[in-house]
Amino acid sequence: MALETRIEAAIAEAIAMGQGGDCAGGCVAPPRLASALHYAVTPGGARIRPTILLSVAMACGDDRPVLSNAAAAALELIHCASLVHDDLPSFDDADTRRGKPTVHLAYNEPLAVLAGDSLIVLAFDVLAKAAEQDPRRGLALIRSLACRTGMPMGICAGQGWESEAEVNLSAYHQAKTGALFIAATQMGAIAAGQEPEPWTELGARIGEAFQVADDLRDALYDADTLGKPAGQDEAHARPSAVTEFGVQGAIRHLRDILSGAIASIPSCPGEAMLAEMVRRTAERMTPVAPSTSSKVAG
Amino acid sequence: MALETRIEAAIAEAIAMGQGGDCAGGCVAPPRLASALHYAVTPGGARIRPTILLSVAMACGDDRPVLSNAAAAALELIHCASLVHDDLPSFDDADTRRGKPTVHLAYNEPLAVLAGDSLIVLAFDVLAKAAEQDPRRGLALIRSLACRTGMPMGICAGQGWESEAEVNLSAYHQAKTGALFIAATQMGAIAAGQEPEPWTELGARIGEAFQVADDLRDALYDADTLGKPAGQDEAHARPSAVTEFGVQGAIRHLRDILSGAIASIPSCPGEAMLAEMVRRTAERMTPVAPSTSSKVAG
Repeated sequence: MALETRIEAAIAEAIAMGQGGDCAGGCVAPPRLASALHYAVTPGGARIRPTILLSVAMACGDDRPVLSNAAAAALELIHCASLVHDDLPSFDDADTRRGKPTVHLAYNEPLAVLAGDSLIVLAFDVLAKAAEQDPRRGLALIRSLACRTGMPMGICAGQGWESEAEVNLSAYHQAKTGALFIAATQMGAIAAGQEPEPWTELGARIGEAFQVADDLRDALYDADTLGKPAGQDEAHARPSAVTEFGVQGAIRHLRDILSGAIASIPSCPGEAMLAEMVRRTAERMTPVAPSTSSKVAG
Repeated sequence: MALETRIEAAIAEAIAMGQGGDCAGGCVAPPRLASALHYAVTPGGARIRPTILLSVAMACGDDRPVLSNAAAAALELIHCASLVHDDLPSFDDADTRRGKPTVHLAYNEPLAVLAGDSLIVLAFDVLAKAAEQDPRRGLALIRSLACRTGMPMGICAGQGWESEAEVNLSAYHQAKTGALFIAATQMGAIAAGQEPEPWTELGARIGEAFQVADDLRDALYDADTLGKPAGQDEAHARPSAVTEFGVQGAIRHLRDILSGAIASIPSCPGEAMLAEMVRRTAERMTPVAPSTSSKVAG
């Protein structure tokens, strides 16, 4: 599929840049950290955020594919960096991710911290390099990604809420899961020369849906199916749509949110195609109760 | 002193932005992480990197002070982020920094990881915001900072070398300590509309001098004087100029490097002023043997 190929090529190009591929001689990168960068972004999983980003860009005409590709890669690098840091012993202390050992187990803890840091920096460098094509759009992409990554309202802020005694639940959810989906729709629009604001709601609703779907998977699946530890919401006493609405209620809630997402799509040449993309995303998200359904009853 | 005031104001403005000061209502940041951002950048210490950056910008005419100030703040945010992550238990496991508890002890380990991540993101956001004044220079500042922060040759790469069995010493030193001094001279030049390349050597030499001075302080001072643990090079078996040349040899080596730095200053309106700045920096760097000189003999 063309979209997948574009995304994987853009990510591979970004990682090669971080490993020193751009250096005109004389630049030697530390080999294990260079290897950890590649390890942290593969295998790809669904690449759902860059898929949404490119879908929005294409729906808006995608007249600067170099910018859209860079934006897709940068967004996925930030997502992967957040996974590496979230898996650290002081956070989720996860042993597996996408079916293989987490970065701090496959390498070591300092290299996991550094791989995350390097992927964050690389994301902004990839955007700044592509911005030569169109400085105005490039700078808007950098600002949008920074806004949804750091403080006060990006995914760092989202994680930060988990160290608070009193949590602002709306700010927590919007920042923790919503932020990078908002970045996806906004950056897709910006890369194609559109204003980001009309695209905020679509991203926010997809993010909300994704959070509910993730809560469902965490409650319904086992670790082998997830490729990461299961039952983490219960284990860490985190708020979850399953705790709030029950399994069937959460599935209904998920479908309602996605209908709202489709209704929020701004008028654009690729409106129908985008609605179809959201429907496909919804199908991929909605968990099918696994055959070993003991956890559903529990 | 005007330079100090500019630097502290630029850093305070950046931190306020990260804490949500720019948000037009509805944006609530997690309070402890917001507080950790401020904690991580204060008290200031010598602010040596932004001082060099602004000195170079002023020597080149400083015709866009908004850009120079943003560059100075961004560079110091990256430096502070690196200190927070370097102090983590899996790295230096340091208890104190600048005479107070390190961020992971004053807050907790997740907040220290997130504070570092957020400061990195904020650095690029500060530059992208200021770039509205001059997109071309702004993007060059972002690329210069990214190059000297991440992989393959920034401070992340420098730290990455410490996880290698075989270390490329020249790449290690240039990346670990040199990188942010090269960023300082290059970014000062870029902010004032000059090409960065002629300024690389000055930054590299100041960085080399700083490393030798740091080795001397680590060997000669106690933890109270340093405001951080002493004797870390010996404890972690890290390469050091003191091990290589002895104390007096290292002091002579430091002076030679600084003479070379002054000789490398490109021709510019503020050349004499810059030479004076390097001399003052040298005086501040060169350790005076402390009264309790037992460690010198050891």
